Amino acid sequence: MVVVMKINTSAEQIATLDKRLKASGYQTHLIRGAKRIVIGAVGDRRPVEPAELESMPGVEKVLRIMKPYKLVSREVQETDTIIKIGGLEIGGKKLTVIAGPCAVESREQLLSAAQAVRRSGANVLRGGAYKPRTSPYSFQGLEKEGLRLLAEVGAQTELATITEVVDEESLLTAVRYVDMVQIGARNMQNFRLLRAAGKSGKPVLLKRGLSATVEEWLMAAEYIVSSGNREVILCERGIRTFEDSTRNTLDLSAVALAKQLTHLPVIVDPSHATGKRELVGAMSRAAVAAGADGLIIEVHPDPAVALCDGPQSLDPGEFDALMSGLRPLGAAVGREL
Amino acid sequence: MVVVMKINTSAEQIATLDKRLKASGYQTHLIRGAKRIVIGAVGDRRPVEPAELESMPGVEKVLRIMKPYKLVSREVQETDTIIKIGGLEIGGKKLTVIAGPCAVESREQLLSAAQAVRRSGANVLRGGAYKPRTSPYSFQGLEKEGLRLLAEVGAQTELATITEVVDEESLLTAVRYVDMVQIGARNMQNFRLLRAAGKSGKPVLLKRGLSATVEEWLMAAEYIVSSGNREVILCERGIRTFEDSTRNTLDLSAVALAKQLTHLPVIVDPSHATGKRELVGAMSRAAVAAGADGLIIEVHPDPAVALCDGPQSLDPGEFDALMSGLRPLGAAVGREL
Amino acid sequence: MVVVMKINTSAEQIATLDKRLKASGYQTHLIRGAKRIVIGAVGDRRPVEPAELESMPGVEKVLRIMKPYKLVSREVQETDTIIKIGGLEIGGKKLTVIAGPCAVESREQLLSAAQAVRRSGANVLRGGAYKPRTSPYSFQGLEKEGLRLLAEVGAQTELATITEVVDEESLLTAVRYVDMVQIGARNMQNFRLLRAAGKSGKPVLLKRGLSATVEEWLMAAEYIVSSGNREVILCERGIRTFEDSTRNTLDLSAVALAKQLTHLPVIVDPSHATGKRELVGAMSRAAVAAGADGLIIEVHPDPAVALCDGPQSLDPGEFDALMSGLRPLGAAVGREL
Amino acid sequence: MVVVMKINTSAEQIATLDKRLKASGYQTHLIRGAKRIVIGAVGDRRPVEPAELESMPGVEKVLRIMKPYKLVSREVQETDTIIKIGGLEIGGKKLTVIAGPCAVESREQLLSAAQAVRRSGANVLRGGAYKPRTSPYSFQGLEKEGLRLLAEVGAQTELATITEVVDEESLLTAVRYVDMVQIGARNMQNFRLLRAAGKSGKPVLLKRGLSATVEEWLMAAEYIVSSGNREVILCERGIRTFEDSTRNTLDLSAVALAKQLTHLPVIVDPSHATGKRELVGAMSRAAVAAGADGLIIEVHPDPAVALCDGPQSLDPGEFDALMSGLRPLGAAVGREL
Repeated sequence: MVVVMKINTSAEQIATLDKRLKASGYQTHLIRGAKRIVIGAVGDRRPVEPAELESMPGVEKVLRIMKPYKLVSREVQETDTIIKIGGLEIGGKKLTVIAGPCAVESREQLLSAAQAVRRSGANVLRGGAYKPRTSPYSFQGLEKEGLRLLAEVGAQTELATITEVVDEESLLTAVRYVDMVQIGARNMQNFRLLRAAGKSGKPVLLKRGLSATVEEWLMAAEYIVSSGNREVILCERGIRTFEDSTRNTLDLSAVALAKQLTHLPVIVDPSHATGKRELVGAMSRAAVAAGADGLIIEVHPDPAVALCDGPQSLDPGEFDALMSGLRPLGAAVGREL
Repeated sequence: MVVVMKINTSAEQIATLDKRLKASGYQTHLIRGAKRIVIGAVGDRRPVEPAELESMPGVEKVLRIMKPYKLVSREVQETDTIIKIGGLEIGGKKLTVIAGPCAVESREQLLSAAQAVRRSGANVLRGGAYKPRTSPYSFQGLEKEGLRLLAEVGAQTELATITEVVDEESLLTAVRYVDMVQIGARNMQNFRLLRAAGKSGKPVLLKRGLSATVEEWLMAAEYIVSSGNREVILCERGIRTFEDSTRNTLDLSAVALAKQLTHLPVIVDPSHATGKRELVGAMSRAAVAAGADGLIIEVHPDPAVALCDGPQSLDPGEFDALMSGLRPLGAAVGREL
Repeated sequence: MVVVMKINTSAEQIATLDKRLKASGYQTHLIRGAKRIVIGAVGDRRPVEPAELESMPGVEKVLRIMKPYKLVSREVQETDTIIKIGGLEIGGKKLTVIAGPCAVESREQLLSAAQAVRRSGANVLRGGAYKPRTSPYSFQGLEKEGLRLLAEVGAQTELATITEVVDEESLLTAVRYVDMVQIGARNMQNFRLLRAAGKSGKPVLLKRGLSATVEEWLMAAEYIVSSGNREVILCERGIRTFEDSTRNTLDLSAVALAKQLTHLPVIVDPSHATGKRELVGAMSRAAVAAGADGLIIEVHPDPAVALCDGPQSLDPGEFDALMSGLRPLGAAVGREL
Repeated sequence: MVVVMKINTSAEQIATLDKRLKASGYQTHLIRGAKRIVIGAVGDRRPVEPAELESMPGVEKVLRIMKPYKLVSREVQETDTIIKIGGLEIGGKKLTVIAGPCAVESREQLLSAAQAVRRSGANVLRGGAYKPRTSPYSFQGLEKEGLRLLAEVGAQTELATITEVVDEESLLTAVRYVDMVQIGARNMQNFRLLRAAGKSGKPVLLKRGLSATVEEWLMAAEYIVSSGNREVILCERGIRTFEDSTRNTLDLSAVALAKQLTHLPVIVDPSHATGKRELVGAMSRAAVAAGADGLIIEVHPDPAVALCDGPQSLDPGEFDALMSGLRPLGAAVGREL
């Protein structure tokens, strides 16, 4: 930690700060510049938030040297984390493709989607049972009945299953039906839910918040891992920016960066990121080229009648074409589909 | 609703869409332009999401005419909502000032803060018992013990009390101790919590999400009101932008705009918005001048040792000076303190 | 400057860096932490961009201690800069109000606007002669004829005048007709134009760029001042964010912050910031309460027929009401109108 | 155009608006809803800005149906524009790779860079002679001497050349030395420069502004094309967002979208977008996979001593490795290198 003092700080203020840093277990080094004094504080036995020091008299700003996350960092674990679900390996050489409808609407709809995505090569079936919707007047999901259908169709088509959970109650219910749980963008900093997911015993797909920095995203993963669950998959799904010609702005640099900073698998959701069916193919290819470990894609048997997210859902034919195009691309960057 | 069709849409696609709109209870008007066809759909018996239509073949985009929120709209209720807590009226001529520490740390700390803010003219005591923190390694709040202290100190100083809740469990506990509950920025779209708050029987302070539009903020309020609780106070606390010299960007235009769009009271949190003690005074004055119904300000007896948000907390002397400056300013815009 | 080295940096890399820092005139201090080495570099005889060092092998990041701007900083000049134009003082106790139409359209329109704003108490007449427009098919301004009208009407109504310049040619022409020149948001980093303005001999109103940080804004002012012109007025006019219910997001925290960081006057443009006539009043009051030294407001004799920016222009009656409301508010914060 | 009237608009206000629309050459269609009246206006003989109508009494908002750009639109020209420079075709099946140093520093540096990038397969040599720098104290480029070196080294290595221009003067000078000119992000809405580039007779690489929407970017291209120059290449180089772990946020969805909206070639600058050498490879691959027609990459013989943008510059070995990796990837999406 480096503490920059204000111009004209008193000797007493510096002594007070020095004492506090030492009391927190730091060794201190005083550097006297032409106008300012800077204190280098070495040691990280316990976390002191830079902000705590910034409120002390005479301090102008505090610069952090160490990264605030630990367990999820490549500095702690160099090799990639690989998460196994049955025969499936997430984070390995083979790309993971999660596909299915935004929301579970009926057995027919889900089964039809599942059979189609399976046929085209997807590994995991997605389907929302608890839907966080901006409007209280929109369809909110089939809840438990949706989970039941997901389990049944997953078993029938031999696909692993994933669904979004929105609070501790839905989490506790969902883990009885599905293979993986998803924490959505709006809940990325729902710390109660993160801790509960850390104790759920199921792999967790953690979506990046709409306006979360990469660091905050990794800190959210740290919540889950530090609660006891090492099986976390990060998912980039677009961030909110001024650009309004796409629903969100897909941040593929964050994918490449996250792969360097953490050992956890990173996948991409081009459907929510763009909100436009006609961009999903190009962004899926770009994601794989950027180093993503997989994709999560919305597929609906008939997008025109979908109860949610129709405009961004592929129909089975479009999904099949997408998967065909991904094979040579994956091969070009050393991945299998 | 206005549906813009793609260039070269077939007559069949138009007929299909027209049928769907009519089936949903709309009257339709076809407008043929030089290149495109546009369909005006009139009637709002039930909500159809524009996005649902955008997935239909031939549709380029759908423009919404009606606002998506209803109960919170000034079109439904012209007069200001005034919320009463004991003798206190939030949303009336008198400004509401909520003040106190970021987190309840101890009886001494809380009592000292409460006595100070009361002396300077605050109406409500704030104090966090459940703290959502970015790092799992930071102080997370005293929880129930914090609520107990808040109730005790509130009673002793005759101040109404408010605290943040983070899930249904903390909400159900908090309502037994405090006069108002707060839903934080990170939970603005925690729809489960919004619905629960709608049934809590206590006034709810709803902070705007870090990257929530004004419309989404009002939709979140609509969740609470449509669940049965009309006592919602909106709170602007800064949005996330590219600017990094302040913690967030305080959006006072949103305050003035919200006062026009909704009948609910709107207050401002200059402490979290700026993250800097030395900007809190100016932004408090600006908020009142912009038409805010009140302020929520962090005050700590000794910010230098605060367990959270020290850099933005005022000490009692600074808060007293702030309040003195607000009186003439309030008077200039027809408000009392 | 503080240089943070990567984990496992070689002794040779450290020696190379140390040598380069010393060659640039810095004294260096090596701090050895548990995992990393940090180098404190003291002295600021000549500017080395942190980025230049970040490209050296072994360097993880470089933290700047000194602010990158000098001449515009309060650290260099503590007292407020006051700019005099005839009897007018910009940056003093009296607020400066610049008002007039977005574009000069005709003598009648400009004279009518000028007489109205003068009657209500404005000090400076604005009127665009060179209009930067997003579309090549929009009205682009009367150019030299507009300047001529501005000079004539300014003289007739005894108002100082200001107009926007868009390149060196328009600057050289404008200075012959007006009292002050304005550099628009889109040209805030048009460094050629900044340097030319630094040699123009006229006060320069420098608008903040749509996505410029406060630091970049001050650096743009530094360009002008370091080219020889100390008479720079900063103007906050809204930044671009995700929020789309206002044209831009007015950043009043930046105004309060700029007043602390620089000695230059800071004014606010609520018209462009909000893009909505019905928000201009509230935001004008908020700006003055936040500490702004003045306002620039669009006023048109008949906004419904304005050739540009009609939706945000006040008519003379609205402007007069605004000015009346500002007087008591200004008094409450120690300013005169 | 669709005009939405306010609730309770008077018959007279509607008649006035209707008259104005008809006077502008529109046919109008009145749609009466339960609460509001909506007017559909058909015809596009001449451009009326929606904003002009929004200032009329009784109007709530105006929705545009037509896209505001024409000449650059795929609706006007379906087939891809291909720009020829000698044997080079930009926008065709073969990818264009522009490479070279941020700034021309010396003949040795430029020649060394040029020989390296040519050897690895680049088609165009870049080198800045006029450098827009945030600080007035940073290196600003060799100007004319830089252009001279660029022309000399381009001829010697048989590479086409490109350089940035910053105003009309530098443009007029540059066209005498180089094959293509570049308009930087900060000048994307320097409309004077755009018009001048439209008359320059050279292909223009137009970078997207830091906070420009895709629509504004295309409108800027429309300025150039409507001034007489059809040879415009769009370049995505990252937008400004809240994320600070990369210099900017590379918006590859905008690339895929632009390829659908316009017939102009679109290339990507991963160097400026990320600001980090270690992300340039992944983002180059992602750009090609997203459908970009080419790349512009910073390469310096010795990045550690570069006068600008060292941290994001590749050395010749890194660039060669990047090019090798791009070949199979290009092949997978039907492109050659």
